[in-house]
Amino acid sequence: MSAAAAQPPGAPPVQRVLALSGGVGGAKLALGLSRVLEPTALDIVVNTGDDFRHLGLAISPDIDTLLYTLAGLADPLRGWGRRDETWQFMGALERLGGETWFALGDADLALHVQRTHRLGCGETLGEVTATFARQLGIAARIAPMSDDPVRTRVATDEGRLDFQDYFVRRRCAPAVRALAFDGAGGARPSPLLLGLAHEPAPRAVVLCPSNPWLSIDPMLALPGVRAAIAACTAPVVAVSPLVAGRAVKGPTAKLMGELGLPVTHASIASHYAGLIDALIVDAGEPALDAPGAVQVVVAPTLMESLDDRERLARTVLEVADRVLRQRVRDRAAAATEAQQ
Amino acid sequence: MSAAAAQPPGAPPVQRVLALSGGVGGAKLALGLSRVLEPTALDIVVNTGDDFRHLGLAISPDIDTLLYTLAGLADPLRGWGRRDETWQFMGALERLGGETWFALGDADLALHVQRTHRLGCGETLGEVTATFARQLGIAARIAPMSDDPVRTRVATDEGRLDFQDYFVRRRCAPAVRALAFDGAGGARPSPLLLGLAHEPAPRAVVLCPSNPWLSIDPMLALPGVRAAIAACTAPVVAVSPLVAGRAVKGPTAKLMGELGLPVTHASIASHYAGLIDALIVDAGEPALDAPGAVQVVVAPTLMESLDDRERLARTVLEVADRVLRQRVRDRAAAATEAQQ
Repeated sequence: MSAAAAQPPGAPPVQRVLALSGGVGGAKLALGLSRVLEPTALDIVVNTGDDFRHLGLAISPDIDTLLYTLAGLADPLRGWGRRDETWQFMGALERLGGETWFALGDADLALHVQRTHRLGCGETLGEVTATFARQLGIAARIAPMSDDPVRTRVATDEGRLDFQDYFVRRRCAPAVRALAFDGAGGARPSPLLLGLAHEPAPRAVVLCPSNPWLSIDPMLALPGVRAAIAACTAPVVAVSPLVAGRAVKGPTAKLMGELGLPVTHASIASHYAGLIDALIVDAGEPALDAPGAVQVVVAPTLMESLDDRERLARTVLEVADRVLRQRVRDRAAAATEAQQ
Repeated sequence: MSAAAAQPPGAPPVQRVLALSGGVGGAKLALGLSRVLEPTALDIVVNTGDDFRHLGLAISPDIDTLLYTLAGLADPLRGWGRRDETWQFMGALERLGGETWFALGDADLALHVQRTHRLGCGETLGEVTATFARQLGIAARIAPMSDDPVRTRVATDEGRLDFQDYFVRRRCAPAVRALAFDGAGGARPSPLLLGLAHEPAPRAVVLCPSNPWLSIDPMLALPGVRAAIAACTAPVVAVSPLVAGRAVKGPTAKLMGELGLPVTHASIASHYAGLIDALIVDAGEPALDAPGAVQVVVAPTLMESLDDRERLARTVLEVADRVLRQRVRDRAAAATEAQQ
């Protein structure tokens, strides 16, 4: 019987779920999880490899997407920034001769100005993020993967680019040859990540349907994080970001092709081999030979409505609980066999 | 005959006018001057004692007022900031728990963010200001009184306050005991100020109807500036900021009372004694015993319309030219007398 199922209602403390997330796709699942779990039972560790300084402002695109999504403020169409945004700042900036390739909405600016200010006062990115989440009424915990700067650099056929140069300014046009996460080797991972190596384990570790190479790999590149996940006794469940052979949003499919990988769930499963117990993939894909012990679960992963988000969140938790029950059964069977 | 009158149209180069300005009142006269002079013949040196860092942003309220006023972007009612401003940023900042006592409009933010960014890249305040003026299509030259930080501190009955704490947060409520300009002693004045000691002299030096204690004194506190103005062969004309015994805007009258000064043009004249040749005062004041050689000229100084601004600008130039003609006549008479 899984620990979650054994838990009587009310006490002991609710088992937590840890989600690893990049931007849009990850935030959708995180929102779903936050709605089907106890409000405070969700921890979300967020990629900061996309972070950069622009106009002197400290910008954390994935953290912002999580904050806006969980606060109900996200723009539902663009996939970034705030709903009902206005653009007076950008118009005035253009007139002053400022750089306008990265769009900053008027209300969105408050996040960047205040974060830059608080960081300048000596607060950590984690402290600033926690304050924002609290102010925005978000019950889940949102934490950067590290308080130390890690910067994703993209080696392309046009040379080495900073991530936002590649992603926003060049709209992912250059062909990617390799990725590097500058600073990752010396960055201290979030305690939420390193804590996975120790008990009590969370109910589940969820790799959200974010880009494995751009959004999840920066976290896995932090010292000790792969080992902590591997040592974790909780089920680790990933959701493939591919739907019908394409990424729902962003450059995942294009990037996989440029890295010489088939754009299939098998490539995702291979990438996470040794780390995950289960991979949830969308229906309509060719049969998947997942490597080693990875269990493949077919389920609708496209998250258009809020119901979709909640349904996928429930699926993720069911798969995690099933993995744990199976593990308990396997151990019991092995023990019985050893006794015979 | 004055140098200006002797100048044939077209050549040699137009004689420049140098205006010393604080915020709103000074900017109004500067706008008038910019419209009655050759477009490029006006230099404006602006007080930066009110500058401060807020939310990590470098804010120069008087420079901004000059930029917006001369670019036709100033809000005509509030007296600060931009016309047609929106406030999405402030609303979002408040929700994040940020400081909201200093209002920053969405479009106005572009100036502060871009200035902070360029200063951080190593540009001087003068360079940044010149770029902004050029981008906004302003023909006049707008220069900070110094590229080095000078900060006005207000000693009050509630203790020592930073200027914006006194001016905006406390709305000038505390009673002022004394003023100090931190950093002034070590700041390098604008070359436009120090250059007054050398030929060619401008056609006129204008002390705009700004607060003498808060807006003009910080400039006079810079090393060598008083001496340069005193040595300048150009006429120096001040416009009193008082109209009917009151300041048109801002705390001038309240401040004068707290400093133990009668709220009269005589106090203004005494304050500028030794520096100015003429003081332009509004009608309807008691007869003025100006100290020493200060010529007092009564003229309408309230600037409500654009016509008012231009009319006062013409008056200032006429007074300056008259001072110069008188000076030439006096010298000629003295020379004749010496020959006899």
